[in-house]
Amino acid sequence: MAPRDLHSTWARLLVQSLADAGARDIVSSPGARSTPLLVAALAHPDLTVHSIIDERSAAFFAVGQAKVTGRASVLLCTSGSAGAHYYPAIVEASEAGVPVIAITADRPRELQGNKAPQTIDQTNLYGRFARAFCDTGMPGETEDELRSLRRKMAQAWSRAHGAKPGPVQINAPFRKPLEPCEANDEDRGPRKMADEIAREPIVRAEQPVARAHPDAIERLAGRVRMARRGVIACGPGALANGKARAALYSLATRLGWPVLAESTSQFRFTGESSETRIDFFDTVLRSARFRAQMKPDLVLSIGGTLTSMSWPLYRAEHPDAFLALLSEHDWADASNRAREIVFGPIAHTITTLARALDRRQDAGNDSVRPAPVTPDSIGPDPQWLASWKRADAHAGKAVAGRFENDAPLTEGALTHYLVHALPAGSLLALGNSLPVRDVDWFVPGAARDLAVWSQRGANGIDGLLSGAAGAASKWPGRAALYVGDVSLLHDLHGVLTAVHAPKPLTVIVPANGGGRIFDLLPLARKRAVPQEALPYWTTPREPDFNALARSLGAACFAADTVSSLEKALAESHEMPGCTMIVASIAPRTVTAEQDEIRAAATHAIDQDHA
Amino acid sequence: MAPRDLHSTWARLLVQSLADAGARDIVSSPGARSTPLLVAALAHPDLTVHSIIDERSAAFFAVGQAKVTGRASVLLCTSGSAGAHYYPAIVEASEAGVPVIAITADRPRELQGNKAPQTIDQTNLYGRFARAFCDTGMPGETEDELRSLRRKMAQAWSRAHGAKPGPVQINAPFRKPLEPCEANDEDRGPRKMADEIAREPIVRAEQPVARAHPDAIERLAGRVRMARRGVIACGPGALANGKARAALYSLATRLGWPVLAESTSQFRFTGESSETRIDFFDTVLRSARFRAQMKPDLVLSIGGTLTSMSWPLYRAEHPDAFLALLSEHDWADASNRAREIVFGPIAHTITTLARALDRRQDAGNDSVRPAPVTPDSIGPDPQWLASWKRADAHAGKAVAGRFENDAPLTEGALTHYLVHALPAGSLLALGNSLPVRDVDWFVPGAARDLAVWSQRGANGIDGLLSGAAGAASKWPGRAALYVGDVSLLHDLHGVLTAVHAPKPLTVIVPANGGGRIFDLLPLARKRAVPQEALPYWTTPREPDFNALARSLGAACFAADTVSSLEKALAESHEMPGCTMIVASIAPRTVTAEQDEIRAAATHAIDQDHA
Repeated sequence: MAPRDLHSTWARLLVQSLADAGARDIVSSPGARSTPLLVAALAHPDLTVHSIIDERSAAFFAVGQAKVTGRASVLLCTSGSAGAHYYPAIVEASEAGVPVIAITADRPRELQGNKAPQTIDQTNLYGRFARAFCDTGMPGETEDELRSLRRKMAQAWSRAHGAKPGPVQINAPFRKPLEPCEANDEDRGPRKMADEIAREPIVRAEQPVARAHPDAIERLAGRVRMARRGVIACGPGALANGKARAALYSLATRLGWPVLAESTSQFRFTGESSETRIDFFDTVLRSARFRAQMKPDLVLSIGGTLTSMSWPLYRAEHPDAFLALLSEHDWADASNRAREIVFGPIAHTITTLARALDRRQDAGNDSVRPAPVTPDSIGPDPQWLASWKRADAHAGKAVAGRFENDAPLTEGALTHYLVHALPAGSLLALGNSLPVRDVDWFVPGAARDLAVWSQRGANGIDGLLSGAAGAASKWPGRAALYVGDVSLLHDLHGVLTAVHAPKPLTVIVPANGGGRIFDLLPLARKRAVPQEALPYWTTPREPDFNALARSLGAACFAADTVSSLEKALAESHEMPGCTMIVASIAPRTVTAEQDEIRAAATHAIDQDHA
Repeated sequence: MAPRDLHSTWARLLVQSLADAGARDIVSSPGARSTPLLVAALAHPDLTVHSIIDERSAAFFAVGQAKVTGRASVLLCTSGSAGAHYYPAIVEASEAGVPVIAITADRPRELQGNKAPQTIDQTNLYGRFARAFCDTGMPGETEDELRSLRRKMAQAWSRAHGAKPGPVQINAPFRKPLEPCEANDEDRGPRKMADEIAREPIVRAEQPVARAHPDAIERLAGRVRMARRGVIACGPGALANGKARAALYSLATRLGWPVLAESTSQFRFTGESSETRIDFFDTVLRSARFRAQMKPDLVLSIGGTLTSMSWPLYRAEHPDAFLALLSEHDWADASNRAREIVFGPIAHTITTLARALDRRQDAGNDSVRPAPVTPDSIGPDPQWLASWKRADAHAGKAVAGRFENDAPLTEGALTHYLVHALPAGSLLALGNSLPVRDVDWFVPGAARDLAVWSQRGANGIDGLLSGAAGAASKWPGRAALYVGDVSLLHDLHGVLTAVHAPKPLTVIVPANGGGRIFDLLPLARKRAVPQEALPYWTTPREPDFNALARSLGAACFAADTVSSLEKALAESHEMPGCTMIVASIAPRTVTAEQDEIRAAATHAIDQDHA
């Protein structure tokens, strides 16, 4: 008896349904069990198939794409432990609210629980980190089975793009044969039926649009109206936050409040100077005197938890300040002191808040419960913003001028020239640990108009090259990733992924002896562990990064001076594929550089506030 | 107020308790949150700390160690997504029954659920793949808290080494400061109490010893006594199975039954010729005529599911053969046709079975229910074993003599010379996909006395370098890994892990254009997909493996002829650290080589059985 070809029909309908729902990118890792789906995906005119060997790298690539597109990329892998490698990126996607669909091909039910090779229980493989799980069941041939498959794909898509977008797992078992067969007589009926079903429009199941609750906006507007000394703090946020820039700065200007915007918020690198932005707020807030004197009465926190290490000190020293949070969907209150959390899309919430402030306060509105009004607490403090701006100027002076000469490279110089070398509209991808901080320490927001890609969902040092390669593959302009050497070693396969990705990516890695963030922690600063034990934290396993990059197919530049860095950056931006710039920086440089800047800034700020 | 140092006391007691329970190896990945535990582990005289950047690689390393030692290695990582990288190795450990303890450091409870950085819900991170989960709670100072910590460590150890050993997760939250502090007055009491508790002997909680059920042994002995044509098939098994070799072959000789032992069973590479072992059973069973004529009445399957692709054909063509399974703990019956499964340690079960056969059948024993006795079914068939051995000789002839000349390298020649170059008592680590099959196809068991390390729990192509490096770090003799190029690219960080591992490892990788197992599948053989789509399965992403290995610190040899291979193997065995031998093999060679061998063997066997 000739084998049936039901699996090809089933796979085609599955893939067509995902495409009809909105899928455009399939990220496939090699394996036999996923063959029917890969064959169908390769044949589909609207789908691009990316092939990445390591499922972990593939998953970060897919999540990186979706951070740019807002649309789930579809992961496809074989059965067994393959799907387990998606877990770290699934965690990041779940935490960051990024849609992704993971299809784990599976063995049929008769090969479950009896130690058939490459067979594990794949049910709900990602536990609470997946928004939904569905099992397609074995390829079926009745109309109801075929329609249920199409419905499940519509559901998976809908649930991946819900109130807080996230990962969805689809488990898809197939029996051998896995490759397409000659259709026999029995196959023709189901195939015809599947084709007809696939030609019908797919059910659209749009999740509702979230909008900030009007009562919350009114309450917040009441608070804001009464505040004399407010601070707007912008933590990590989606690329879409870039649309809220004008509204945010117009609100800040009108209130006379400083904007502390870290790079990942999308509010920092506007390419324009600003009368409200405090570029070097992390440095400014190192001054204990400044922190003490600048008592806020309201903090408007936008997006995720700020990366700055000095911001929490400031917050903790003024626990009575009313803390309001504008958040897309996260309870991002690491201080446990929030008083009002307004959920909803950031741009819309800011616009609505501004409009509410325009309206006269309606004292009869029950939902507004202002704090008791005292003479001291009405109207903005005219000195407030000016003090912040003056301190920021001091900090800026401590930074400026450091990177002019052709001196040995420092983290500061690297960051400075990297940002300035990028064309406006580029995507700057930032690694966690030091890179995401370096940029805020060393580069003012007027330097460039940039979108900033990061992985601040779980804030890991993992999957950064893979994720940035995925983001670059969808970004209309240039893309560059600044990533630490330990992160690079953690995501070695990401180099291969970036090399084979459809669009160029420049990777800048400081070869500084690994894990230098630990130099900044008490562990090293206070010599709390013996010096010879420090490598267990800093992991100085420097391979020959140049040779490594080249062996994997990346172009590579070595830079050890400002001029060689500038040259490498300029050349890399003209090159296709993955280019790696290995910047040699002496270990511990960042500590010294930071100490100097902080000392100079604090000295000037303290004098000002004597 | 000076900070408390409770966390150091707590971490010391935790680490001391694990060491008292039996831990010897800590595999740590860098991070801040795990600092108290890493400090305590580094200070402990009985513990060796291995530092591996990528948690995924670290976990496979730990599991590789435990496959050799039988003792859980202890993983240690920071909070957030770090622990998610353990997942693939946790899956392998769970499926293969290997003990491992994963300590995920965590943020304190007050930083849970409010988007503090590097904070996710780490509860039960590995779902059903962990045997147990415990949370230590925050560092405490009462006697009961301290005693509970010690008890939880004893429990974790006990549960990791249970009936089927496996992974246990310990979640350990810490609050800042994380580095050791000057102990203040308040700290002295708890520290003294913890030291006293740690000096008491830890509770021993040995899991019961498993022994095959006597009734099962009797039933099976009854069946075996009546069988005329039995087959002993040995699938993947733990290294400890090596102890059962003498018992197994003595049983087979006495019964006159062929032993089909794949390399991963530990029963193949004995270094001695055998009157019962059928070395090339996979090739022999490619002959449809042989399969049809050699009707078995009993199959005694030992260990896991056989890797051979022809074995299931043979089994399926004789569904009436009584299938008995000797298994340590797995229901390893991919055919769904087992009639008797005897759980228990393999060596002991075989010995007990042999002893039961020695006793006269006691017809009055209710637990023995022999099949109806017919004249045809009593006593062994004297031609049975001879036919198998003759067929094996034909297959052996088709293989032998192929690798004599200094011809271009093939998979066969590579495997042949690799095994012969290893000193007796070496550890041969085999990658999945082709390597694990190559050895069975090309090398007879008399070639060498070897222990064979593999990852046949979930049979993935993942974590093989990392796992082998872990196994090598604990093996008393030489260790060599034969691994495919796609597997190597999947586990790139494994090269770095092997380079920094405490003992040498030779890695032999065939550079053959990637994923050649797909050449052997219908997908390629029947041209079921267009040729230009094949790379999506074979993934021919050949980097410069030599340069890659060198950049990461491995010594490297390139081999493209038998003589250069032999030279490289000889030299590598003298070298410390990680040595990589990149063997250039033309893509598709394996298909042609296999086709030739199978054709010659089948021709000779078919003539014999005409």
